[in-house]
Amino acid sequence: MQEIKIFCPATIANLSCGFDVMGVALDTIGDEMTVRKIAERKVEITKITGQDLPKEINKNVAGVAASAFLKKAKYCGGFEIEIHKKIKPGSGIGSSAASSAGVVWAMNELLNRPFSKKELVEFAMQGERLASNVAHADNVAPVIFGGFVLVRSYAPLDIVQLPTPKALYAVILHPQIEIKTADSRKILKSRIALEEGVKQWGNLGGLVAGLFKEDYELIGRSLEDHIIEPTRSILIPGFEEVKKKSLDAGALGCGISGSGPSIFALCQGIEMAQNVAGAMQKVYDKIGIDFEVHVSKLNAKGAKKLK
Amino acid sequence: MQEIKIFCPATIANLSCGFDVMGVALDTIGDEMTVRKIAERKVEITKITGQDLPKEINKNVAGVAASAFLKKAKYCGGFEIEIHKKIKPGSGIGSSAASSAGVVWAMNELLNRPFSKKELVEFAMQGERLASNVAHADNVAPVIFGGFVLVRSYAPLDIVQLPTPKALYAVILHPQIEIKTADSRKILKSRIALEEGVKQWGNLGGLVAGLFKEDYELIGRSLEDHIIEPTRSILIPGFEEVKKKSLDAGALGCGISGSGPSIFALCQGIEMAQNVAGAMQKVYDKIGIDFEVHVSKLNAKGAKKLK
Repeated sequence: MQEIKIFCPATIANLSCGFDVMGVALDTIGDEMTVRKIAERKVEITKITGQDLPKEINKNVAGVAASAFLKKAKYCGGFEIEIHKKIKPGSGIGSSAASSAGVVWAMNELLNRPFSKKELVEFAMQGERLASNVAHADNVAPVIFGGFVLVRSYAPLDIVQLPTPKALYAVILHPQIEIKTADSRKILKSRIALEEGVKQWGNLGGLVAGLFKEDYELIGRSLEDHIIEPTRSILIPGFEEVKKKSLDAGALGCGISGSGPSIFALCQGIEMAQNVAGAMQKVYDKIGIDFEVHVSKLNAKGAKKLK
Repeated sequence: MQEIKIFCPATIANLSCGFDVMGVALDTIGDEMTVRKIAERKVEITKITGQDLPKEINKNVAGVAASAFLKKAKYCGGFEIEIHKKIKPGSGIGSSAASSAGVVWAMNELLNRPFSKKELVEFAMQGERLASNVAHADNVAPVIFGGFVLVRSYAPLDIVQLPTPKALYAVILHPQIEIKTADSRKILKSRIALEEGVKQWGNLGGLVAGLFKEDYELIGRSLEDHIIEPTRSILIPGFEEVKKKSLDAGALGCGISGSGPSIFALCQGIEMAQNVAGAMQKVYDKIGIDFEVHVSKLNAKGAKKLK
């Protein structure tokens, strides 16, 4: 294979109770990317559409991730990359992760999979470091593994793939304001109350158990965040009302996607998801900030080849 | 049924990463108890063997739990209780929980199960409050539900039963010193670093996933505690060496059982468990404090009727 065209999914990280350790891939929201082999041992970004992003390798998350890959690959050629951004940077649904994880996934396919998925995550994390100063894995891992992913540990990196219950749908409300992950991390408190920690790990355990049991109500009850959400939600206009109306409309749970400003809800079935999307939209119609609402099935496969 | 004789298992709470939310029941360590119906609407403790404990209802954890049960039961009679303590109070393997959960489980059986398991946990928690000033559920829930149990939330109480992989064995080293749960809670810091919290909920997620996947190595990797163990282990002579030698001998993981002083290890298979027990024993032979070592299968059933 000389060339591959791929879909790299958007992702919801944190998922309320799983700050820095949980993420899930979406099915109908994501970037496209074409990667092709070239003779010279280098990485080149030849085209970017959809967003105004730098093509310099060391300033572009895909470039940084691709370079980390190439440095370790036993391959004497290089790669040329075309990126078609559909996920806006700073949206909170893993825009940088789609680029950095997508590109290394594509390169691995072109070379007949010399690297494990975990190694691909490690390359992609280099791109994440450029985007937010922290090499977090909770967006890139779901792009590469698909479905729900737990990052049990960062040192050493330990990634656990979790089941993706079939009836789960995500609703994303994306207010058209930008919150940089780096800024959104700065406002977090460095210390938390032990009793809030106990609630958080109880919920995370409940979420993981709910996914294995396909217990949608347990998943919903576990989507609580007493630690990050109270601080970060201040940056998101109308957050409390969107959340309340989403839950009233039947959402299993609702919270901040990644570091925001996007708000996610998980729903059982497409019908509930569409109701929740409508409820979110109504709130934002009144607020007067531009926004987009997406409904998406969850994506158990992750990045994939397009025909 | 007029009378029931039961086995009420010892339990390991916390399980390293699951402070206040996880527990598991043991199979061959536990108390025995006989509960019989009486005509008068009252609870009476008629006999206690094995330990010198108060028979006054409001000073005995089983009495308190039994009273909470009786108060809510539509039953015009009462109960007479005989307790045969085999688990020493202050051992860290759920001595009070065996009594308080065991008695309400037995009473429920005698009345043909008018209460749900969750309601029984709520009654038993009243006994736990007497023992440690905190109505925690991570010991009593495994006595009643059996196997591994997650207390997702305390308010409202939400208990999630988890799978119990068949090859798991526990080793318990019980140094014959007493640490009161209430004292052991006092030394804990009320605030923790966010980054330690992230590690903890990552591990808790890993432990829950490992139980569902029957992935013994993942279970082992997840048995880490960066929050409670560094503080509480100071109260346990030789803790670090016991832990190191247990892991060297093949234990999946090793930590403090409940609030200590008992140290637990989880092992895959009886052979590994016996090796670990031997390694623990060697360390304590040198220390010169009296101790007991137990090897037990895990108990997926919880409290049970004896013939």
